[in-house]
Amino acid sequence: MPKYFTRVSDEQIQKIREYMDLFMGHPFSGTAIGAVLDDAASSQGKMIRPRLLVMASEFGSACREAGDRLYKLAAIVEMTHLASLIHDDIIDDAPLRRGKPSVQSKYGKNAAVYAGDFLMSRISYHLMREGLNHSGMVLSKTVEAMCVGEIGQAACRYKENVTMEEYLRNIHGKTVALFMACCRIGARESGCSEKVAQLLEALGECLGYMFQMRDDLLDFTTDHTQIGKNAHQDFQEGIYTLPVLLALEQPGGREALTPFMQRNAGRILSAEDICRMEQLVTELGGMEKSWNLIHGYQQHAEELIRLLPSCEVAQLLLKLVRKLGAV
Amino acid sequence: MPKYFTRVSDEQIQKIREYMDLFMGHPFSGTAIGAVLDDAASSQGKMIRPRLLVMASEFGSACREAGDRLYKLAAIVEMTHLASLIHDDIIDDAPLRRGKPSVQSKYGKNAAVYAGDFLMSRISYHLMREGLNHSGMVLSKTVEAMCVGEIGQAACRYKENVTMEEYLRNIHGKTVALFMACCRIGARESGCSEKVAQLLEALGECLGYMFQMRDDLLDFTTDHTQIGKNAHQDFQEGIYTLPVLLALEQPGGREALTPFMQRNAGRILSAEDICRMEQLVTELGGMEKSWNLIHGYQQHAEELIRLLPSCEVAQLLLKLVRKLGAV
Repeated sequence: MPKYFTRVSDEQIQKIREYMDLFMGHPFSGTAIGAVLDDAASSQGKMIRPRLLVMASEFGSACREAGDRLYKLAAIVEMTHLASLIHDDIIDDAPLRRGKPSVQSKYGKNAAVYAGDFLMSRISYHLMREGLNHSGMVLSKTVEAMCVGEIGQAACRYKENVTMEEYLRNIHGKTVALFMACCRIGARESGCSEKVAQLLEALGECLGYMFQMRDDLLDFTTDHTQIGKNAHQDFQEGIYTLPVLLALEQPGGREALTPFMQRNAGRILSAEDICRMEQLVTELGGMEKSWNLIHGYQQHAEELIRLLPSCEVAQLLLKLVRKLGAV
Repeated sequence: MPKYFTRVSDEQIQKIREYMDLFMGHPFSGTAIGAVLDDAASSQGKMIRPRLLVMASEFGSACREAGDRLYKLAAIVEMTHLASLIHDDIIDDAPLRRGKPSVQSKYGKNAAVYAGDFLMSRISYHLMREGLNHSGMVLSKTVEAMCVGEIGQAACRYKENVTMEEYLRNIHGKTVALFMACCRIGARESGCSEKVAQLLEALGECLGYMFQMRDDLLDFTTDHTQIGKNAHQDFQEGIYTLPVLLALEQPGGREALTPFMQRNAGRILSAEDICRMEQLVTELGGMEKSWNLIHGYQQHAEELIRLLPSCEVAQLLLKLVRKLGAV
């Protein structure tokens, strides 16, 4: 994934990581909470959100002057993402999280609750210390949206009649909102006009949807040759995503898939059930229609980029959009 | 308890509550998280922390001008307390919290995690919106200390060799730090000198210790006539507080009490065990020595008040200190 964002140099990423280390430094060595925080800090994630923030900032005339503020905000944006991952892991005592042991199963719930709270208090502290109030307010509202999205998703788990509208609302909160915030913050901190900031925010929205939908599709693409791969994690956790929802909407879809959802709710779904469910979703066109929807966002994103000032970073964003839209 | 803080008028409390309602307004009606937030908002708690903040502010010459800022901060301080209560309830799946159903047993863990996060994001938002950065930084550092205290307490649960030092450190984080922050914030926002702010902060420290120790002692005072009272909640949850720790330090104390702690850790402590344990702690002087310690803080608090500018609120603080120290 980092290859999508090659615009952001290794030196820039290094600076952002240094701020993360500085802001996340903690007194918990040798304890469970310390381990959670160290794991999070060293996860060497794709840094997609900080990269997006830095790319958005390049449309502003004051991008160079904003330098350090941008790196600090990029660090804080990634910390926000990490804090949300830690707290999401507490939900419903899931032992696995996308096939990996969840924070709480590895370190206990207590560590997960307070490691997340600790990160959130550090985020507030540094936003206020650096006087980043405007961007900080955008970020606080985003965290609020993230809570709404996660709550919505939890409320929809194992729900047979979950709708596309609910799915879109939930992923808007849990993923899309932070992508939008990255674009808005990068744009405004570097002095973009409100018009450009709005375009970038709308682009962030498309990217967020594409990113999450792609992620949901990947979870749905079983690699039967790869031993140990825990496919259909979402489905098994009762989180019904794009391909399932689109298949349900097809004639006969609901009748065909409901029995699987019922067995899933009863926690008696077998490995054969999962294979059959995947097959049904594919036959009903769930995969194809998912890609169509992603391509709709791609088209919209490309239009938005055409409205942005044409420059090198706009071309790179176009490349990114096309990669996210590639099957 | 409110009677301790009569200095703060009902009108002032009303204003603080109005800001709490405004800041805590949410879009979750009819859902579990909405119920958690509404429960918290309507809990009609004693508002001890906001009252302390307002009282501390009366030592400043700019107290009147600071009016609304103070009420907003007082609301935010209470919200911080509420958020911490909600997250503390997640710990170790406790069905009860001081004898009452815990948030998570009533509404589920998901609601507890995100209701707390939602409150924290609202706190950050309003601090930044109002430009309350200095006090906001004090508060963020306090939340950090609260996490440290709660983690410390969780790590000490059921630990037979837990020390007084650990106990003091844990309650400093979980309770005392926020009392200190209330005093510091009230003092500085109303224009107190650094010297007076430090005195008030030190007074907040004494009050915090006295308040928590008194609370721990109350949990230890069984009212055998009152049916349904769930005494020794702390002990049964493996949280060994002041009277137990002081009894353990006496000659023969460790030998006498360790068997009870062992049975407690094995979750096989009987009602008779609890009575016997209480008796032993009392015989070993645990209760008496606890009061002696509280009176030590009282003495120190009275000295601090004598160093403060003499005024009506100082006299009321003195009364408060004496009430907290009264057996």
